[in-house]
Amino acid sequence: MKALVYHGPGSKSLDEKPMPKLISATDAIVRITRTTICGTDLHILKGDVPTCEPGRILGHEGVGVIEQVGAAVSTFKPGDHVLISCITSCGKCDYCRRGMYSHCTTGGWILGNKIDGTQAEYVRIPHAETSLYPIPAGADEEALVMLSDILPTGFECGVLNGKVQPGSTVAIVGSGPIGLAALLTAQFYAPAQIIMIDRDANRLEVALTFGATACVNNASGDPVAEIMKLTGGIGVDCAIEAVGVPASFELCESIIAPGGTIANVGVHGVKVDLHMERLWDRNITITTRLVDTVSTPMLLKTVRSGRLEAGKLITHRFKLNDVLKAYETFSQAADTHALKVIIEA
Amino acid sequence: MKALVYHGPGSKSLDEKPMPKLISATDAIVRITRTTICGTDLHILKGDVPTCEPGRILGHEGVGVIEQVGAAVSTFKPGDHVLISCITSCGKCDYCRRGMYSHCTTGGWILGNKIDGTQAEYVRIPHAETSLYPIPAGADEEALVMLSDILPTGFECGVLNGKVQPGSTVAIVGSGPIGLAALLTAQFYAPAQIIMIDRDANRLEVALTFGATACVNNASGDPVAEIMKLTGGIGVDCAIEAVGVPASFELCESIIAPGGTIANVGVHGVKVDLHMERLWDRNITITTRLVDTVSTPMLLKTVRSGRLEAGKLITHRFKLNDVLKAYETFSQAADTHALKVIIEA
Amino acid sequence: MKALVYHGPGSKSLDEKPMPKLISATDAIVRITRTTICGTDLHILKGDVPTCEPGRILGHEGVGVIEQVGAAVSTFKPGDHVLISCITSCGKCDYCRRGMYSHCTTGGWILGNKIDGTQAEYVRIPHAETSLYPIPAGADEEALVMLSDILPTGFECGVLNGKVQPGSTVAIVGSGPIGLAALLTAQFYAPAQIIMIDRDANRLEVALTFGATACVNNASGDPVAEIMKLTGGIGVDCAIEAVGVPASFELCESIIAPGGTIANVGVHGVKVDLHMERLWDRNITITTRLVDTVSTPMLLKTVRSGRLEAGKLITHRFKLNDVLKAYETFSQAADTHALKVIIEA
Amino acid sequence: MKALVYHGPGSKSLDEKPMPKLISATDAIVRITRTTICGTDLHILKGDVPTCEPGRILGHEGVGVIEQVGAAVSTFKPGDHVLISCITSCGKCDYCRRGMYSHCTTGGWILGNKIDGTQAEYVRIPHAETSLYPIPAGADEEALVMLSDILPTGFECGVLNGKVQPGSTVAIVGSGPIGLAALLTAQFYAPAQIIMIDRDANRLEVALTFGATACVNNASGDPVAEIMKLTGGIGVDCAIEAVGVPASFELCESIIAPGGTIANVGVHGVKVDLHMERLWDRNITITTRLVDTVSTPMLLKTVRSGRLEAGKLITHRFKLNDVLKAYETFSQAADTHALKVIIEA
Repeated sequence: MKALVYHGPGSKSLDEKPMPKLISATDAIVRITRTTICGTDLHILKGDVPTCEPGRILGHEGVGVIEQVGAAVSTFKPGDHVLISCITSCGKCDYCRRGMYSHCTTGGWILGNKIDGTQAEYVRIPHAETSLYPIPAGADEEALVMLSDILPTGFECGVLNGKVQPGSTVAIVGSGPIGLAALLTAQFYAPAQIIMIDRDANRLEVALTFGATACVNNASGDPVAEIMKLTGGIGVDCAIEAVGVPASFELCESIIAPGGTIANVGVHGVKVDLHMERLWDRNITITTRLVDTVSTPMLLKTVRSGRLEAGKLITHRFKLNDVLKAYETFSQAADTHALKVIIEA
Repeated sequence: MKALVYHGPGSKSLDEKPMPKLISATDAIVRITRTTICGTDLHILKGDVPTCEPGRILGHEGVGVIEQVGAAVSTFKPGDHVLISCITSCGKCDYCRRGMYSHCTTGGWILGNKIDGTQAEYVRIPHAETSLYPIPAGADEEALVMLSDILPTGFECGVLNGKVQPGSTVAIVGSGPIGLAALLTAQFYAPAQIIMIDRDANRLEVALTFGATACVNNASGDPVAEIMKLTGGIGVDCAIEAVGVPASFELCESIIAPGGTIANVGVHGVKVDLHMERLWDRNITITTRLVDTVSTPMLLKTVRSGRLEAGKLITHRFKLNDVLKAYETFSQAADTHALKVIIEA
Repeated sequence: MKALVYHGPGSKSLDEKPMPKLISATDAIVRITRTTICGTDLHILKGDVPTCEPGRILGHEGVGVIEQVGAAVSTFKPGDHVLISCITSCGKCDYCRRGMYSHCTTGGWILGNKIDGTQAEYVRIPHAETSLYPIPAGADEEALVMLSDILPTGFECGVLNGKVQPGSTVAIVGSGPIGLAALLTAQFYAPAQIIMIDRDANRLEVALTFGATACVNNASGDPVAEIMKLTGGIGVDCAIEAVGVPASFELCESIIAPGGTIANVGVHGVKVDLHMERLWDRNITITTRLVDTVSTPMLLKTVRSGRLEAGKLITHRFKLNDVLKAYETFSQAADTHALKVIIEA
Repeated sequence: MKALVYHGPGSKSLDEKPMPKLISATDAIVRITRTTICGTDLHILKGDVPTCEPGRILGHEGVGVIEQVGAAVSTFKPGDHVLISCITSCGKCDYCRRGMYSHCTTGGWILGNKIDGTQAEYVRIPHAETSLYPIPAGADEEALVMLSDILPTGFECGVLNGKVQPGSTVAIVGSGPIGLAALLTAQFYAPAQIIMIDRDANRLEVALTFGATACVNNASGDPVAEIMKLTGGIGVDCAIEAVGVPASFELCESIIAPGGTIANVGVHGVKVDLHMERLWDRNITITTRLVDTVSTPMLLKTVRSGRLEAGKLITHRFKLNDVLKAYETFSQAADTHALKVIIEA
């Protein structure tokens, strides 16, 4: 079968690889119909993710059709259409039982990282019954690819952890795909204000069409002053960090209101300065989270009911044969204005 | 001044009454600009509310302008535009400190009940600093009358207590003003389904324009079967009782899903049958609540930001001189299709 | 093997039955070392539980040793000592993923009800990995039998649902085993008062030794007046119903403070009167629950750390050969003062 | 009257000062019967608190007797025994209404900081009705001095924010008075383990008598390794920082389990390094808080019911005339083994 293979920092190719086989009785083999590329795939290609070794098929998102199931799988059968969660969950370890699938002792983020992933014609999914979700007949399957990772990540790590509530004031630092996913799902809770912050004018324009109530370009000027002005000098109830660098985290520290929450979504490579000398008496909360995808069943309901337009994040479409072009388009988002790119297998 | 006075069961008139005076240092006198009529006012007129004695000026909703303040009032001054809460709160008793203003030991629902109310040219508001809310310049003051009672009631007693969440299935039994207030505010949380149940076809039509996803007319047929069909045989996550009679409460008992919540909003005059022989192992929650108006500051923000169209509930407008006609219109809602009627003073 | 078999209303015997066999790949066979009798077993013997058919081996509590595991079971192996949960949980259905194991679509309360139970030498446990808990070396295994059902039931249905908090005032109606289990676990939260109510003077004496701060005998006198006096006329923050009859539920309705919670634990056979005409504006919550045993890992930690003396509930010990005598002792608790009886297999 | 006055960094004296007078109608004058010294008083004396100007009477803790009340004070009268909260709360601003008294717009921590404090014979208390608590007849008033600041601080900032639960594993870094206050109140929730960390062997010994289950001396050795060993390699569910320096905060970062909470109590003067490169995917929460004293009514109940032995923190007693000696004893705690020192006025 065809698969996009990582060959070490800076190197990838579309290769012919053997079909995956069932290893455990709880596995399933899924024929991929659509997958996509994540910012994390680019991190791997930079050599930033040591757990991912050369030879690995990349990708942890997608929808497809069950091809084969292990002996212990009773809730899925060949032919079933399924959504693949980026997080593999056994359903039985202490973490899974507490809803913290990201830390599953035999799962977590392993697809396209520690085991072969979804940017291929077929993929093996361990713990299939608790890591796949049935797709109802008639669903827009392309849009559901956004539920593998990006929408649950924006929602769980940003919106839920950030305790967005009706009437809240929210700032989202970073208007890339993940910030926009937080923007879309923040609207579940009717906040009064959602301020998007980014250095890219185009992304801020997109944010306005996605429901932002105000935008601040932090490429220049004094973004803290602008945000404080927009919030009557109080700051925001919820600041969502959707970039992953010290500067954007510290911006959140500067705009958070007393009693507010900083919800980190970004992947960080270095430490940040936490200004406890200013924050110790401000009654704030800071959260970190690797997405658990515990909200996937709920998100499926909001998509089905029309409350969440998941497909809005999709800007480009490619065939698996053109996956290298898809990577090029996605990685040059400033020029291509790409958000999420669909790859049809 | 002119005031609508209760003279005992079945009897009311627009009378000339003396101007209210400050009694306590924490009082304010408010000149009413707009008030409205509540279902509870009709209960009083039927003789159902023994705490309300003949001679009482009715009304517990409205907006107006501060005329005079007591010596201990520092946050309001004459000329300020204010929203009057139906619940008087001292801000210092145990209940107020826990956010349960409805049970304030020197307040609670006293306006137009134990003390003179708002259907008049002027009203005395005790504990003014914690029972009035400033109206920002440029606000639609008429719409804000809906924040005195009906919207916080629908929201707190129905939506908040009912734990409506993104993706939830909600049923609201009763599509009168209070059920519609719950319908409007339930949408803060992006539920997947909101099913309205009523015997009045017109009210159900209104509900559809207010955001209901389905309607069930329980004047005939098998409403339980219809609702179970709409929910895939599971029942609803949240059932809001917005009528106040045993039949509608028992309907909620019949449609609640395992793990769901029945949030009672209706005012009940008699006991109901609680079918514990069916419900003891269903993991359900039942809540009761007199509105606390603790959500008023938040609701003001959602109105200001356009998330809540409070004015949609207003169907008729009258001058204070025509208050008897306003009562007639409101009490014959089946014919007049009245929801909330505004009375301009 | 020997097993206690239900032969229809009023009839049971210790019979020779075939050894259980693995049916599904996720099953385990457990050699029972200790089991016990539950009030529900007596309900079955009265013919009150139609799902339990003649020929059924009774019992849903116990500890034992893994004898054999199905092909898909990887977390247990023969020789492991295990605690058996009264609730069977698949870990993968919607209810299990939400922590509501009681409503597992292929589990729930099935042991000694819809499938053969634990009052035998061996038992088959479906969904073994998510329905058994490993017993750490050196644990008091006899005491852990109390964690199969009675302690999680008292804790989850009574204490957790009742929102017992530091400084709370708690009333527990019913001082039998389940009420005492609630009493023991309520003390996790340092309530200020725990008032036990029962008609049996001996049980109230036991309650005082278990940590009750006051007792009310409701065999005569005016229990409501006594409880109101004990709480300064306010009533209790949390009332736990641990009997299952209308009178005790209505007692809870009469003593609940504004803002309080009635947590039902008792198994009810008939409806109760819910006095909504008094309660609609009292801001109360009523909960029902079949135990989910979602707290079992936490309870194991509290037992191990000495915070919970689970063994205190054990009053009598029998061999499996004397199981009929064990039933006699347990069912005549008023005379025998039995709480929980251990049966050694 | 006599009062301990701050005269600038390093300088204080017991001076004769004029009696305080009522300024606002909501004030009360309290005759102090007992007060104490806080670590924050030492910070002021070092010159670390710029809001506190020379000439200020220090102290923000104490109990006393109402001497005089303003015209708007109705819930207290001369002769009433009262507990003084370290936080002044108006009960009516947005922050107070949300239970965040620490950020009261006309209160917060002002006593002995922005206005004269309690280390004197008399003190003026603004917003008296919402900043004083009645002491019930027969209470141990000396012990209640611990409820002015130290116990609510340890409880709210450490235990509540840290979400200590039955069965939790807790580490408290810093075994001084505030760490010990967290230790005492953590036991409200029956955690399985409470590990105290300090460099002072005596303080760790005290911690063991106060209920710690293990102690780690971090003056030498590898405290992280020791704590990981005590927790089976997982780390702690809750880490309470009760020192206020970067090293102890970073220790918390190193021992927190996935899904855990770091609750900061310490007063910090400089920034700390937040290792987001390790923590971004650990699903942790970090909280900061200036005590709100919103838990004071609850703590009063736990003291009265015997669940909290507040007096255990008191090690020394002085007369107001010897207040300088009291300061000396408190500030040299390593030698004197002082925890809290009572000053009788």
